[in-house]
Amino acid sequence: MYRTHTCGELRIENINTEVTLAGWVQRIRDLGAMSFIDLRDRYGITQLVIDEETDAAIAEQLDGLGREFVIQATGLVRERQSKNKNIPTGEVEIALKGIKVLSPSAIPPFTIEDKTDGGDDLRMKYRYLDLRRNAVRENLVLRSKMAHAVRNYLNDKDFIETETPVLIKSTPEGARDFIVPSRMNEGQFYALPQSPQTFKQLLMVAGFDRYFQIVKCFRDEDLRADRQPEFTQIDCEMSFVEQKDVLEMFEGLTKHMFKETLNIDVEDFPWMPYSEAMEKYGSDKPDTRFEMCISDITETVKGNNFVVFDSAEYIGAICAKGCAEYTRKQLDGLTKWVQRPQVGAKGLVYVKCNEDGSFKSSVDKFYAQDDLKVWAEKTGAEAGDLILVLSGDKDKMQGALGDLRLEMAKQLNLLDKNIFKPLWVVDFPLLEWDEDTQRYHAMHHPFTAPKPEDIALMDTDPGKVRANAYDLVINGVEIGGGSVRIFDAELQAKMFKLLGFTKEDAEAQFGFLMNAFKYGAPPHAGIAFGFDRLVSLFAGLDTIRDVIAFPKNNSGRDVMIDSPAPVADAQLDELNLKLDLKEKE
Amino acid sequence: MYRTHTCGELRIENINTEVTLAGWVQRIRDLGAMSFIDLRDRYGITQLVIDEETDAAIAEQLDGLGREFVIQATGLVRERQSKNKNIPTGEVEIALKGIKVLSPSAIPPFTIEDKTDGGDDLRMKYRYLDLRRNAVRENLVLRSKMAHAVRNYLNDKDFIETETPVLIKSTPEGARDFIVPSRMNEGQFYALPQSPQTFKQLLMVAGFDRYFQIVKCFRDEDLRADRQPEFTQIDCEMSFVEQKDVLEMFEGLTKHMFKETLNIDVEDFPWMPYSEAMEKYGSDKPDTRFEMCISDITETVKGNNFVVFDSAEYIGAICAKGCAEYTRKQLDGLTKWVQRPQVGAKGLVYVKCNEDGSFKSSVDKFYAQDDLKVWAEKTGAEAGDLILVLSGDKDKMQGALGDLRLEMAKQLNLLDKNIFKPLWVVDFPLLEWDEDTQRYHAMHHPFTAPKPEDIALMDTDPGKVRANAYDLVINGVEIGGGSVRIFDAELQAKMFKLLGFTKEDAEAQFGFLMNAFKYGAPPHAGIAFGFDRLVSLFAGLDTIRDVIAFPKNNSGRDVMIDSPAPVADAQLDELNLKLDLKEKE
Repeated sequence: MYRTHTCGELRIENINTEVTLAGWVQRIRDLGAMSFIDLRDRYGITQLVIDEETDAAIAEQLDGLGREFVIQATGLVRERQSKNKNIPTGEVEIALKGIKVLSPSAIPPFTIEDKTDGGDDLRMKYRYLDLRRNAVRENLVLRSKMAHAVRNYLNDKDFIETETPVLIKSTPEGARDFIVPSRMNEGQFYALPQSPQTFKQLLMVAGFDRYFQIVKCFRDEDLRADRQPEFTQIDCEMSFVEQKDVLEMFEGLTKHMFKETLNIDVEDFPWMPYSEAMEKYGSDKPDTRFEMCISDITETVKGNNFVVFDSAEYIGAICAKGCAEYTRKQLDGLTKWVQRPQVGAKGLVYVKCNEDGSFKSSVDKFYAQDDLKVWAEKTGAEAGDLILVLSGDKDKMQGALGDLRLEMAKQLNLLDKNIFKPLWVVDFPLLEWDEDTQRYHAMHHPFTAPKPEDIALMDTDPGKVRANAYDLVINGVEIGGGSVRIFDAELQAKMFKLLGFTKEDAEAQFGFLMNAFKYGAPPHAGIAFGFDRLVSLFAGLDTIRDVIAFPKNNSGRDVMIDSPAPVADAQLDELNLKLDLKEKE
Repeated sequence: MYRTHTCGELRIENINTEVTLAGWVQRIRDLGAMSFIDLRDRYGITQLVIDEETDAAIAEQLDGLGREFVIQATGLVRERQSKNKNIPTGEVEIALKGIKVLSPSAIPPFTIEDKTDGGDDLRMKYRYLDLRRNAVRENLVLRSKMAHAVRNYLNDKDFIETETPVLIKSTPEGARDFIVPSRMNEGQFYALPQSPQTFKQLLMVAGFDRYFQIVKCFRDEDLRADRQPEFTQIDCEMSFVEQKDVLEMFEGLTKHMFKETLNIDVEDFPWMPYSEAMEKYGSDKPDTRFEMCISDITETVKGNNFVVFDSAEYIGAICAKGCAEYTRKQLDGLTKWVQRPQVGAKGLVYVKCNEDGSFKSSVDKFYAQDDLKVWAEKTGAEAGDLILVLSGDKDKMQGALGDLRLEMAKQLNLLDKNIFKPLWVVDFPLLEWDEDTQRYHAMHHPFTAPKPEDIALMDTDPGKVRANAYDLVINGVEIGGGSVRIFDAELQAKMFKLLGFTKEDAEAQFGFLMNAFKYGAPPHAGIAFGFDRLVSLFAGLDTIRDVIAFPKNNSGRDVMIDSPAPVADAQLDELNLKLDLKEKE
């Protein structure tokens, strides 16, 4: 060992012990008669001192040292004159007796401090230096702890962690696959899994009863801020269970993670039907840290000759507490905000509930004070509040109000990252109609079971069928999702038909699963958590990139190792492939 | 829940309780007045009884039942008349009150029993049925337990489990990579990792101090019985450590696994230098469950006008205990065995040590009884033993004697699967000369540090340089391997040069690592365990295939899902690729 203790270990009890530490030079301060080195490792920082008592030869060695040098230092632990209460080792220092440079360092391209001067691109290129920063490393430590908490919980509950293959088969359903050419099987390809869905269902058919895996999954999609081509799921499946059994089990898991890693006791998770989430929160992933629910005021406001409202399918409102004083400029800003294409409202109607009990609205021409008073009652607005109203197509405006609700919460500072409000969103529609392809898509995936009471609707009104599907939502983030599965080959075949699969397509892609169902499939259900998002939520971060050791950028590149990269022609030749690059326009 | 208890749970204490079980029909026995169903799930088997007391309607339902049907059964627990001591539930049975078929089953293509009638191919195609067999599933349960034991141990020791990327960059060094075309980066490719080697070293540069990961790795190599294109490693790395620290840590891990999963206390692991392993065992992975070490008798036997020996570089022998009675036929068999190309000896000389103290050898013409007596002394042979002698090129014959030693152990039934003899093989050569390419290859990998005392030899006699590299060997199987790493950019550059890299090649492939070393790299060392092999060793199996849930066959195919498979032209087009199939000859 190069050290007797770590840099985070020494305390006042250790004084007069001779110790050897090893780590990185965080800082050197030369105060003339005395010099100090802050020595850093993963565990903490310890102060090394060079003073009159230190051998002159050692003192001279300091000249060559710089930030981020790796050194080994031996000395005597002594009490510090001016204690540093901010760090656990702040009561002691090491009077240096010897020092050895293990590894010098060039000047780093950015400072290795909690607040660094390095830009994103530079820090990605030198990710190994960025990871030295406490703030970044702590995210990865949290990730490791959370994974272990997950495994402890699920092992205690008799789940078998089972690895499923990474080299599988491409299926056109869902997102785009990454494919892997096979050398031994000419002209054929593996695909990387978007999830181990079919394999975990086969494990249920195999009688594994309880399966889980923390597993890498892959999607070749254009990347947005919060997407990575490879991401990690906590993937779980159980047999002989109903929806409530699954939710109970994984509510328990989630609570266990909160307790074990953040020492937070969260309350029991409410169940909210999808329809309620859309009506009250304008989102299937409602942020319930704050109220500001949407009120449907369609019937209340129609019939006053305001043609915008009279012609609208739906009129909805939210009440922003204490915002009656919003200025013209602020209101104009909100109007522009809701008119952006991604929100998609035509305009914004507001009502200010003045402190004196009067109302001021953008539609005073059409509505009397008494009318507006009814609006206030309907939306729960009181003196000092601001009512914001959108009108138009119902689904679209509910979504827009949901977005506006979040925007107002941001402006009102309601999004406290230290508060966690988990809930289950349940009773999702089984199918959603896709205008582009003019067919139904599975809202969750093709293996999701309809609610038994809705099965008859599959023939008559498929869009109305609700699924035994559920999402775990925390603070407006979809953390996990799952469903009770179809375990009957006939019902599965019917589902594939609804999704527009020909019998042959279904057979070619999922024949092995439907075949498996012929040999005694147990009722089963499962869930998958987005582990990257979960960690980033726990860490109070806005992006998953900061909880991944070596993330890729928005072009799917790892700029540190400069990947992807061209390969040798011989390599392609062995795979029976040729590049076929398109001319750039 | 579909059940109140599992099929492995009920005991005599539960009698008179009404219970509901769910599971698979293992067996139905109709004894006229009474019928029995053995109901199976992952946890065990419980007997259901239909007798005079059972409702006639229920009894009728039995007619439709068959093996592997999934049923739900309700009834009263009662004491069994004739107890079955072989199963934990054998004291009770369930008097049936109700039964429901959850899922019927076609007749399975092979019997779901510990001893099945299914051939390998059929069982691979219906892997989900094969996994229902206790013997197969238990391997996967063991695997899950072992993984958890690993994580518990390493978490306790402050290791951070960190996921490294799966989409990385192809490097020509080592085995053949699987590559993954990038859609967003035209004409470029990711590669799947053969190991996270460089990433774990970067994590050390990042100050993570202790890293581990149980991780999938990939090699596109022609498959032998014990290889899979995707396999799993326990990958570990530590900073500020020397070789003995690493061996101590991972000896502890290995002992922990033995204790936690097999309840076996193994003794401290001996350290054996590579040179000793080759001399005494003719292998760098010696099986030390039995002795039968190789004796170098070159000097002893030369000079008796036996030209075969006199012209040989090396003559070595093993002593097979109690085999003096081997027949002519057996000895001919052994001769043929050593002459096979994979062993490569020219012939076999034997000496029988008769019970009366005399010797009988195949070289009696050249050696007197007194000569042979010296041979016996040198090889430790006693009356009743058989000495087997090979001669020729030293390296080759040591290997051949190593093979012969194992063959004799097999014949003598010395390979007890319940005995575990771990050891560390240390001081491997840094480099090995490759005749084909006429250059040195890294014996371990290019990041392995030479022993400090041998560094000077890098310039003068590279083949003699020993490395700080080590393998964990158990029962003749290489379970893990690792090394102290180079952490100095200059030494690393020198190593690349020895391996025949141009400066440009080294820079293009490993520039990011050498660059990282410029910013203060800590001394570090690590190890990787072949997890599949480790589990298969613990399970007493001969192949890793049985410890993988969904393995591939020798052509790299998953015959269950029929992968790899052709992909749509559009998919290739998006990736700027074209198939370029060769005409078959």
